[in-house]
Amino acid sequence: MGKVVLVGAGPGDPELITLKAIKYLQSADVIIYDKLIPRELINYAKSSCIVKYLISHDMEVELLRKYAFDYNLVVRLKNGDPYVFGRGGNICYELSKDGIDCEIVPGVSSVNSVPAYAGIPLTFSNVSDMVTVISGVTQGGKLFDFQKIPNYGTLVVLMGSKRVEEISNGLMVKRDPSEEVAIIEKGTYPDQKVHLTNLKELHKFNLTSPSMLVLGKVVRFRQLLWKLS
Amino acid sequence: MGKVVLVGAGPGDPELITLKAIKYLQSADVIIYDKLIPRELINYAKSSCIVKYLISHDMEVELLRKYAFDYNLVVRLKNGDPYVFGRGGNICYELSKDGIDCEIVPGVSSVNSVPAYAGIPLTFSNVSDMVTVISGVTQGGKLFDFQKIPNYGTLVVLMGSKRVEEISNGLMVKRDPSEEVAIIEKGTYPDQKVHLTNLKELHKFNLTSPSMLVLGKVVRFRQLLWKLS
Repeated sequence: MGKVVLVGAGPGDPELITLKAIKYLQSADVIIYDKLIPRELINYAKSSCIVKYLISHDMEVELLRKYAFDYNLVVRLKNGDPYVFGRGGNICYELSKDGIDCEIVPGVSSVNSVPAYAGIPLTFSNVSDMVTVISGVTQGGKLFDFQKIPNYGTLVVLMGSKRVEEISNGLMVKRDPSEEVAIIEKGTYPDQKVHLTNLKELHKFNLTSPSMLVLGKVVRFRQLLWKLS
Repeated sequence: MGKVVLVGAGPGDPELITLKAIKYLQSADVIIYDKLIPRELINYAKSSCIVKYLISHDMEVELLRKYAFDYNLVVRLKNGDPYVFGRGGNICYELSKDGIDCEIVPGVSSVNSVPAYAGIPLTFSNVSDMVTVISGVTQGGKLFDFQKIPNYGTLVVLMGSKRVEEISNGLMVKRDPSEEVAIIEKGTYPDQKVHLTNLKELHKFNLTSPSMLVLGKVVRFRQLLWKLS
Protein backbone atom coordinates (compact mmCIF):
# COMPACT_ATOMS: atom_id res chain seq x y z
CA MET A 1 0.00 0.00 0.00
CA GLY A 2 1.26 3.44 -0.97
CA LYS A 3 1.56 6.68 0.94
CA VAL A 4 -0.40 9.90 0.44
CA VAL A 5 1.41 13.23 0.89
CA LEU A 6 -0.57 16.46 1.09
CA VAL A 7 1.83 19.05 -0.29
CA GLY A 8 1.38 22.78 0.25
CA ALA A 9 1.56 24.38 -3.20
CA GLY A 10 1.76 27.96 -1.99
CA PRO A 11 -0.70 30.75 -2.82
CA GLY A 12 -0.32 31.04 -6.60
CA ASP A 13 3.11 32.47 -7.48
CA PRO A 14 4.94 29.28 -8.59
CA GLU A 15 8.17 30.57 -7.00
CA LEU A 16 6.56 30.35 -3.57
CA ILE A 17 6.95 26.57 -3.62
CA THR A 18 9.33 24.90 -1.15
CA LEU A 19 12.29 22.64 -1.89
CA LYS A 20 10.58 19.86 0.04
CA ALA A 21 7.47 20.16 -2.13
CA ILE A 22 9.56 19.99 -5.32
CA LYS A 23 11.27 16.80 -4.10
CA TYR A 24 7.90 15.12 -3.59
CA LEU A 25 6.60 16.34 -6.96
CA GLN A 26 9.68 14.92 -8.69
CA SER A 27 9.29 11.47 -7.15
CA ALA A 28 5.48 11.19 -7.16
CA ASP A 29 3.81 8.31 -9.02
CA VAL A 30 0.50 10.19 -8.99
CA ILE A 31 -0.14 13.95 -8.65
CA ILE A 32 -3.66 15.24 -8.00
CA TYR A 33 -4.32 18.95 -8.36
CA ASP A 34 -7.24 21.37 -8.77
CA LYS A 35 -8.14 24.80 -10.12
CA LEU A 36 -6.34 26.64 -7.27
CA ILE A 37 -2.94 25.09 -8.10
CA PRO A 38 -0.44 26.98 -10.30
CA ARG A 39 -0.04 24.87 -13.45
CA GLU A 40 3.73 25.44 -13.60
CA LEU A 41 4.13 23.05 -10.67
CA ILE A 42 2.96 20.10 -12.78
CA ASN A 43 6.19 20.47 -14.79
CA TYR A 44 8.15 18.94 -11.90
CA ALA A 45 6.40 15.58 -12.44
CA LYS A 46 8.50 12.72 -13.83
CA SER A 47 7.43 11.44 -17.24
CA SER A 48 5.80 8.27 -15.90
CA CYS A 49 3.73 10.20 -13.35
CA ILE A 50 -0.07 10.11 -13.57
CA VAL A 51 -1.36 13.68 -13.35
CA LYS A 52 -5.02 14.03 -12.44
CA TYR A 53 -7.20 17.15 -12.27
CA LEU A 54 -9.75 17.04 -9.43
CA ILE A 55 -13.10 18.53 -10.43
CA SER A 56 -15.17 17.90 -7.32
CA HIS A 57 -13.89 17.83 -3.74
CA ASP A 58 -16.61 15.31 -2.88
CA MET A 59 -14.50 12.59 -4.50
CA GLU A 60 -11.19 13.69 -2.98
CA VAL A 61 -10.69 11.07 -0.24
CA GLU A 62 -12.05 8.27 -2.39
CA LEU A 63 -9.67 9.12 -5.22
CA LEU A 64 -6.64 9.33 -2.91
CA ARG A 65 -7.56 5.99 -1.36
CA LYS A 66 -7.93 4.36 -4.76
CA TYR A 67 -4.52 5.54 -5.98
CA ALA A 68 -2.82 4.69 -2.67
CA PHE A 69 -3.86 1.06 -3.15
CA ASP A 70 -2.12 0.89 -6.54
CA TYR A 71 0.84 3.29 -6.35
CA ASN A 72 3.71 4.01 -3.94
CA LEU A 73 3.66 7.78 -3.72
CA VAL A 74 0.49 9.80 -4.23
CA VAL A 75 0.89 13.59 -3.98
CA ARG A 76 -2.13 15.80 -3.47
CA LEU A 77 -1.21 19.43 -4.15
CA LYS A 78 -3.16 21.77 -1.87
CA ASN A 79 -3.44 25.52 -2.34
CA GLY A 80 -1.43 27.39 0.31
CA ASP A 81 -0.94 25.14 3.33
CA PRO A 82 -2.81 21.81 3.70
CA TYR A 83 -3.59 22.29 7.40
CA VAL A 84 -5.01 25.83 7.13
CA PHE A 85 -8.60 25.63 5.86
CA GLY A 86 -7.61 22.99 3.31
CA ARG A 87 -9.46 20.08 4.94
CA GLY A 88 -6.03 18.43 5.16
CA GLY A 89 -6.68 17.23 8.70
CA ASN A 90 -9.97 15.63 7.72
CA ILE A 91 -8.41 13.92 4.69
CA CYS A 92 -5.53 12.43 6.72
CA TYR A 93 -7.97 11.33 9.38
CA GLU A 94 -10.16 9.54 6.83
CA LEU A 95 -7.18 7.86 5.15
CA SER A 96 -5.70 6.74 8.47
CA LYS A 97 -8.91 4.80 9.18
CA ASP A 98 -8.02 2.59 6.20
CA GLY A 99 -4.44 2.24 7.41
CA ILE A 100 -3.13 4.54 4.67
CA ASP A 101 -0.09 6.53 5.70
CA CYS A 102 -0.59 10.28 5.20
CA GLU A 103 2.08 12.99 5.47
CA ILE A 104 1.98 16.77 5.29
CA VAL A 105 4.40 19.17 3.62
CA PRO A 106 3.59 22.63 5.02
CA GLY A 107 3.42 25.40 2.43
CA VAL A 108 3.44 29.18 2.18
CA SER A 109 -0.09 29.93 3.36
CA SER A 110 -2.31 32.41 1.54
CA VAL A 111 -3.06 33.87 4.97
CA ASN A 112 0.34 35.60 5.20
CA SER A 113 1.55 35.71 1.59
CA VAL A 114 -1.47 37.23 -0.12
CA PRO A 115 -1.55 40.29 2.20
CA ALA A 116 2.27 40.58 1.85
CA TYR A 117 1.99 40.80 -1.97
CA ALA A 118 -0.57 43.56 -1.40
CA GLY A 119 1.83 45.48 0.87
CA ILE A 120 0.00 44.61 4.10
CA PRO A 121 1.88 43.25 7.14
CA LEU A 122 -0.46 41.16 9.35
CA THR A 123 1.17 42.53 12.50
CA PHE A 124 2.89 45.85 13.23
CA SER A 125 4.36 46.98 16.55
CA ASN A 126 1.94 49.30 18.39
CA VAL A 127 -0.69 48.87 15.64
CA SER A 128 -1.70 45.19 15.62
CA ASP A 129 -0.44 42.34 17.78
CA MET A 130 -3.12 39.71 17.10
CA VAL A 131 -4.29 37.97 13.92
CA THR A 132 -7.47 35.93 13.49
CA VAL A 133 -8.32 33.88 10.41
CA ILE A 134 -11.72 32.54 9.33
CA SER A 135 -13.33 31.26 6.17
CA GLY A 136 -16.43 33.28 5.26
CA VAL A 137 -18.33 30.23 4.03
CA THR A 138 -17.53 26.61 4.90
CA GLN A 139 -17.06 23.97 2.22
CA GLY A 140 -20.58 22.73 2.96
CA GLY A 141 -21.93 26.21 2.16
CA LYS A 142 -22.61 27.31 5.74
CA LEU A 143 -21.97 30.93 6.65
CA PHE A 144 -19.45 31.48 9.47
CA ASP A 145 -20.97 32.32 12.87
CA PHE A 146 -19.72 35.92 13.01
CA GLN A 147 -20.60 36.28 16.70
CA LYS A 148 -17.37 34.32 17.29
CA ILE A 149 -14.91 36.80 15.73
CA PRO A 150 -12.93 39.07 18.06
CA ASN A 151 -13.43 42.82 17.72
CA TYR A 152 -9.68 43.38 18.11
CA GLY A 153 -6.58 42.97 15.93
CA THR A 154 -6.19 41.99 12.29
CA LEU A 155 -8.90 39.79 10.77
CA VAL A 156 -8.31 37.72 7.62
CA VAL A 157 -11.38 36.33 5.84
CA LEU A 158 -10.83 33.69 3.19
CA MET A 159 -13.65 33.60 0.69
CA GLY A 160 -14.86 32.83 -2.77
CA SER A 161 -16.59 35.43 -4.86
CA LYS A 162 -20.09 34.90 -3.56
CA ARG A 163 -22.24 36.03 -0.65
CA VAL A 164 -20.32 39.27 -0.14
CA GLU A 165 -23.40 40.98 1.27
CA GLU A 166 -24.10 38.31 3.88
CA ILE A 167 -20.43 38.24 4.89
CA SER A 168 -20.19 42.02 5.17
CA ASN A 169 -23.36 42.13 7.31
CA GLY A 170 -21.95 39.33 9.45
CA LEU A 171 -18.65 41.13 9.99
CA MET A 172 -20.49 44.27 11.14
CA VAL A 173 -22.01 42.29 14.02
CA LYS A 174 -18.65 42.57 15.78
CA ARG A 175 -16.42 44.95 13.79
CA ASP A 176 -16.87 48.69 13.30
CA PRO A 177 -18.59 49.68 9.99
CA SER A 178 -15.91 52.35 9.44
CA GLU A 179 -13.06 49.81 9.75
CA GLU A 180 -10.58 49.70 6.87
CA VAL A 181 -10.84 46.67 4.57
CA ALA A 182 -8.55 45.43 1.81
CA ILE A 183 -10.10 43.15 -0.79
CA ILE A 184 -7.47 41.04 -2.54
CA GLU A 185 -8.49 39.10 -5.64
CA LYS A 186 -6.20 36.43 -7.17
CA GLY A 187 -3.50 37.21 -4.63
CA THR A 188 0.15 36.66 -5.74
CA TYR A 189 -0.95 35.96 -9.35
CA PRO A 190 0.18 38.40 -12.07
CA ASP A 191 -3.43 39.65 -12.37
CA GLN A 192 -3.82 40.27 -8.62
CA LYS A 193 -6.24 43.11 -7.81
CA VAL A 194 -6.48 45.06 -4.58
CA HIS A 195 -9.29 47.42 -3.50
CA LEU A 196 -9.26 49.51 -0.35
CA THR A 197 -12.59 50.31 1.20
CA ASN A 198 -14.33 50.19 4.56
CA LEU A 199 -16.66 47.62 6.02
CA LYS A 200 -19.91 49.47 5.33
CA GLU A 201 -19.03 49.84 1.60
CA LEU A 202 -17.85 46.25 1.17
CA HIS A 203 -21.20 44.90 -0.07
CA LYS A 204 -20.94 47.07 -3.22
CA PHE A 205 -18.05 45.02 -4.63
CA ASN A 206 -18.39 42.17 -7.10
CA LEU A 207 -15.53 39.80 -6.38
CA THR A 208 -13.79 37.14 -8.42
CA SER A 209 -12.66 33.84 -6.87
CA PRO A 210 -10.45 33.31 -4.89
CA SER A 211 -10.67 36.45 -2.79
CA MET A 212 -9.48 37.49 0.64
CA LEU A 213 -10.47 40.28 2.99
CA VAL A 214 -8.08 41.88 5.45
CA LEU A 215 -9.63 44.04 8.17
CA GLY A 216 -7.80 46.30 10.59
CA LYS A 217 -5.41 49.18 10.99
CA VAL A 218 -2.57 47.36 9.21
CA VAL A 219 -4.44 47.87 5.92
CA ARG A 220 -3.29 51.49 5.77
CA PHE A 221 0.36 50.43 5.35
CA ARG A 222 -0.40 49.28 1.81
CA GLN A 223 -0.06 52.89 0.64
CA LEU A 224 3.52 52.96 1.90
CA LEU A 225 4.74 49.43 1.49
CA TRP A 226 3.24 48.16 -1.73
CA LYS A 227 5.96 47.33 -4.25
CA LEU A 228 4.40 44.83 -6.66
CA SER A 229 3.83 46.69 -9.92
CA MET B 1 21.31 53.24 -3.33
CA GLY B 2 20.60 49.54 -2.88
CA LYS B 3 17.48 47.59 -2.08
CA VAL B 4 16.63 45.66 1.09
CA VAL B 5 14.70 42.40 0.76
CA LEU B 6 13.21 40.76 3.85
CA VAL B 7 13.20 37.07 2.98
CA GLY B 8 11.12 34.50 4.85
CA ALA B 9 13.52 31.71 5.84
CA GLY B 10 10.85 29.27 6.99
CA PRO B 11 10.53 27.74 10.45
CA GLY B 12 13.79 25.79 10.77
CA ASP B 13 13.77 22.79 8.41
CA PRO B 14 16.05 24.09 5.61
CA GLU B 15 13.89 22.31 2.99
CA LEU B 16 10.98 24.62 3.86
CA ILE B 17 12.66 27.45 1.95
CA THR B 18 11.02 28.77 -1.23
CA LEU B 19 12.51 28.98 -4.72
CA LYS B 20 12.07 32.75 -4.61
CA ALA B 21 14.06 32.96 -1.38
CA ILE B 22 16.89 30.87 -2.87
CA LYS B 23 17.09 33.19 -5.90
CA TYR B 24 17.55 36.20 -3.64
CA LEU B 25 20.11 34.40 -1.48
CA GLN B 26 22.11 33.48 -4.58
CA SER B 27 22.25 37.05 -5.88
CA ALA B 28 22.58 38.94 -2.57
CA ASP B 29 25.61 41.19 -1.98
CA VAL B 30 24.93 41.14 1.76
CA ILE B 31 23.03 38.55 3.84
CA ILE B 32 22.08 39.32 7.44
CA TYR B 33 20.83 36.48 9.62
CA ASP B 34 20.31 35.66 13.30
CA LYS B 35 20.08 32.73 15.70
CA LEU B 36 16.62 31.66 14.46
CA ILE B 37 17.86 31.07 10.89
CA PRO B 38 18.86 27.56 9.74
CA ARG B 39 22.60 27.78 8.97
CA GLU B 40 22.29 25.61 5.83
CA LEU B 41 20.65 28.58 4.07
CA ILE B 42 23.91 30.56 4.19
CA ASN B 43 25.39 28.04 1.74
CA TYR B 44 23.36 29.61 -1.08
CA ALA B 45 25.38 32.83 -0.82
CA LYS B 46 27.75 33.65 -3.69
CA SER B 47 31.44 33.71 -2.74
CA SER B 48 31.71 37.52 -2.78
CA CYS B 49 28.69 37.92 -0.49
CA ILE B 50 29.12 39.56 2.92
CA VAL B 51 27.43 37.35 5.51
CA LYS B 52 26.68 39.04 8.80
CA TYR B 53 25.29 37.57 12.03
CA LEU B 54 22.91 39.92 13.85
CA ILE B 55 23.36 39.78 17.63
CA SER B 56 20.94 42.47 18.79
CA HIS B 57 17.70 43.46 17.09
CA ASP B 58 18.17 47.02 18.37
CA MET B 59 20.68 47.60 15.57
CA GLU B 60 18.67 45.90 12.84
CA VAL B 61 17.30 48.90 10.91
CA GLU B 62 20.53 50.87 11.28
CA LEU B 63 22.58 47.98 9.91
CA LEU B 64 20.24 47.44 6.94
CA ARG B 65 20.34 51.16 6.17
CA LYS B 66 24.14 51.21 6.31
CA TYR B 67 24.53 48.28 3.91
CA ALA B 68 21.81 49.59 1.55
CA PHE B 69 23.89 52.75 1.07
CA ASP B 70 26.92 50.73 -0.07
CA TYR B 71 25.54 47.58 -1.77
CA ASN B 72 22.91 46.77 -4.40
CA LEU B 73 21.08 43.87 -2.83
CA VAL B 74 20.83 43.43 0.92
CA VAL B 75 18.94 40.33 2.09
CA ARG B 76 17.68 40.06 5.64
CA LEU B 77 16.66 36.49 6.43
CA LYS B 78 13.73 36.40 8.81
CA ASN B 79 12.51 33.33 10.68
CA GLY B 80 9.21 32.06 9.26
CA ASP B 81 7.45 34.88 7.45
CA PRO B 82 8.67 38.51 7.69
CA TYR B 83 5.17 40.00 8.06
CA VAL B 84 3.96 37.67 10.84
CA PHE B 85 5.37 38.87 14.18
CA GLY B 86 8.76 39.51 12.55
CA ARG B 87 8.67 43.32 12.80
CA GLY B 88 8.99 43.24 9.00
CA GLY B 89 6.36 45.93 8.56
CA ASN B 90 8.12 48.24 11.00
CA ILE B 91 11.51 47.68 9.34
CA CYS B 92 10.17 48.45 5.84
CA TYR B 93 8.40 51.50 7.18
CA GLU B 94 11.59 52.84 8.78
CA LEU B 95 13.67 52.19 5.65
CA SER B 96 11.08 53.81 3.38
CA LYS B 97 11.45 57.05 5.35
CA ASP B 98 15.04 57.20 4.07
CA GLY B 99 13.93 56.43 0.54
CA ILE B 100 15.31 52.88 0.71
CA ASP B 101 13.35 50.40 -1.36
CA CYS B 102 12.20 47.40 0.71
CA GLU B 103 10.64 44.20 -0.60
CA ILE B 104 9.17 41.12 1.07
CA VAL B 105 9.48 37.46 0.14
CA PRO B 106 6.77 35.61 2.09
CA GLY B 107 7.90 32.41 3.77
CA VAL B 108 6.49 29.28 5.36
CA SER B 109 5.29 30.69 8.66
CA SER B 110 5.98 28.90 11.95
CA VAL B 111 2.30 29.49 12.71
CA ASN B 112 1.16 26.73 10.35
CA SER B 113 4.29 24.62 9.82
CA VAL B 114 5.32 24.00 13.43
CA PRO B 115 1.91 22.55 14.41
CA ALA B 116 1.90 20.51 11.15
CA TYR B 117 5.25 18.89 12.05
CA ALA B 118 3.68 18.03 15.40
CA GLY B 119 0.67 16.39 13.71
CA ILE B 120 -1.75 19.20 14.53
CA PRO B 121 -3.99 20.74 11.84
CA LEU B 122 -4.96 24.32 12.75
CA THR B 123 -8.46 23.83 11.40
CA PHE B 124 -10.64 20.73 11.10
CA SER B 125 -14.22 20.56 9.77
CA ASN B 126 -16.73 20.51 12.63
CA VAL B 127 -13.93 20.85 15.22
CA SER B 128 -12.25 24.23 14.62
CA ASP B 129 -13.04 26.86 12.00
CA MET B 130 -11.14 29.85 13.43
CA VAL B 131 -7.45 30.42 14.22
CA THR B 132 -6.02 33.26 16.31
CA VAL B 133 -2.31 34.01 16.68
CA ILE B 134 -0.58 36.11 19.33
CA SER B 135 2.91 36.53 20.72
CA GLY B 136 3.01 35.90 24.48
CA VAL B 137 5.55 38.67 25.10
CA THR B 138 6.28 41.58 22.77
CA GLN B 139 9.83 42.40 21.63
CA GLY B 140 9.91 45.20 24.20
CA GLY B 141 9.18 42.64 26.95
CA LYS B 142 5.52 43.56 27.52
CA LEU B 143 3.08 40.75 28.28
CA PHE B 144 0.17 40.39 25.83
CA ASP B 145 -3.18 41.76 27.05
CA PHE B 146 -4.92 38.40 27.40
CA GLN B 147 -8.35 40.02 27.78
CA LYS B 148 -8.20 40.42 23.99
CA ILE B 149 -8.02 36.74 23.02
CA PRO B 150 -11.21 35.01 21.84
CA ASN B 151 -12.50 32.06 23.89
CA TYR B 152 -13.29 30.16 20.69
CA GLY B 153 -11.32 28.25 18.05
CA THR B 154 -7.64 27.37 17.82
CA LEU B 155 -5.18 29.67 19.58
CA VAL B 156 -1.47 29.78 18.65
CA VAL B 157 0.89 31.49 21.10
CA LEU B 158 4.40 32.29 19.90
CA MET B 159 6.82 32.56 22.77
CA GLY B 160 10.33 32.27 24.02
CA SER B 161 11.19 30.07 26.95
CA LYS B 162 10.45 32.54 29.70
CA ARG B 163 7.44 33.76 31.68
CA VAL B 164 5.47 30.54 31.20
CA GLU B 165 3.65 31.09 34.47
CA GLU B 166 2.49 34.62 33.63
CA ILE B 167 1.41 33.50 30.16
CA SER B 168 -0.50 30.48 31.46
CA ASN B 169 -2.29 32.64 34.04
CA GLY B 170 -3.07 35.16 31.31
CA LEU B 171 -4.53 32.51 29.01
CA MET B 172 -6.83 31.28 31.79
CA VAL B 173 -8.48 34.71 31.93
CA LYS B 174 -10.38 33.73 28.77
CA ARG B 175 -9.73 30.04 28.04
CA ASP B 176 -10.89 27.05 30.03
CA PRO B 177 -8.25 25.63 32.47
CA SER B 178 -9.05 22.11 31.24
CA GLU B 179 -8.39 23.03 27.60
CA GLU B 180 -5.88 20.85 25.73
CA VAL B 181 -2.48 22.45 25.06
CA ALA B 182 0.41 21.30 22.88
CA ILE B 183 3.82 22.73 23.72
CA ILE B 184 6.16 22.55 20.74
CA GLU B 185 9.85 23.29 21.30
CA LYS B 186 12.27 23.80 18.37
CA GLY B 187 9.50 23.06 15.89
CA THR B 188 10.54 21.45 12.55
CA TYR B 189 14.14 21.01 13.77
CA PRO B 190 15.46 17.43 14.17
CA ASP B 191 15.40 17.88 17.96
CA GLN B 192 11.77 19.09 18.04
CA LYS B 193 9.95 18.19 21.26
CA VAL B 194 6.20 18.07 21.81
CA HIS B 195 4.37 17.83 25.13
CA LEU B 196 0.62 17.45 25.51
CA THR B 197 -0.94 18.90 28.62
CA ASN B 198 -3.81 21.12 29.64
CA LEU B 199 -3.89 24.79 30.47
CA LYS B 200 -3.89 24.46 34.25
CA GLU B 201 -0.76 22.23 34.16
CA LEU B 202 1.13 24.42 31.68
CA HIS B 203 3.02 26.44 34.31
CA LYS B 204 4.90 23.30 35.40
CA PHE B 205 6.91 23.08 32.18
CA ASN B 206 10.39 24.50 31.67
CA LEU B 207 10.60 25.48 28.01
CA THR B 208 13.50 26.00 25.65
CA SER B 209 13.47 28.80 23.06
CA PRO B 210 11.79 29.08 20.56
CA SER B 211 8.56 27.51 21.75
CA MET B 212 4.97 27.59 20.62
CA LEU B 213 1.70 26.74 22.32
CA VAL B 214 -1.35 25.44 20.47
CA LEU B 215 -4.64 25.50 22.37
CA GLY B 216 -7.89 23.91 21.29
CA LYS B 217 -9.65 20.73 20.28
CA VAL B 218 -7.40 20.22 17.23
CA VAL B 219 -4.56 19.26 19.61
CA ARG B 220 -6.06 15.78 20.09
CA PHE B 221 -5.43 14.90 16.43
CA ARG B 222 -1.71 14.68 17.15
CA GLN B 223 -2.22 11.16 18.50
CA LEU B 224 -3.58 10.07 15.12
CA LEU B 225 -1.75 12.21 12.62
CA TRP B 226 1.77 12.57 13.92
CA LYS B 227 4.26 11.01 11.53
CA LEU B 228 7.60 12.70 12.25
CA SER B 229 9.73 10.11 14.03
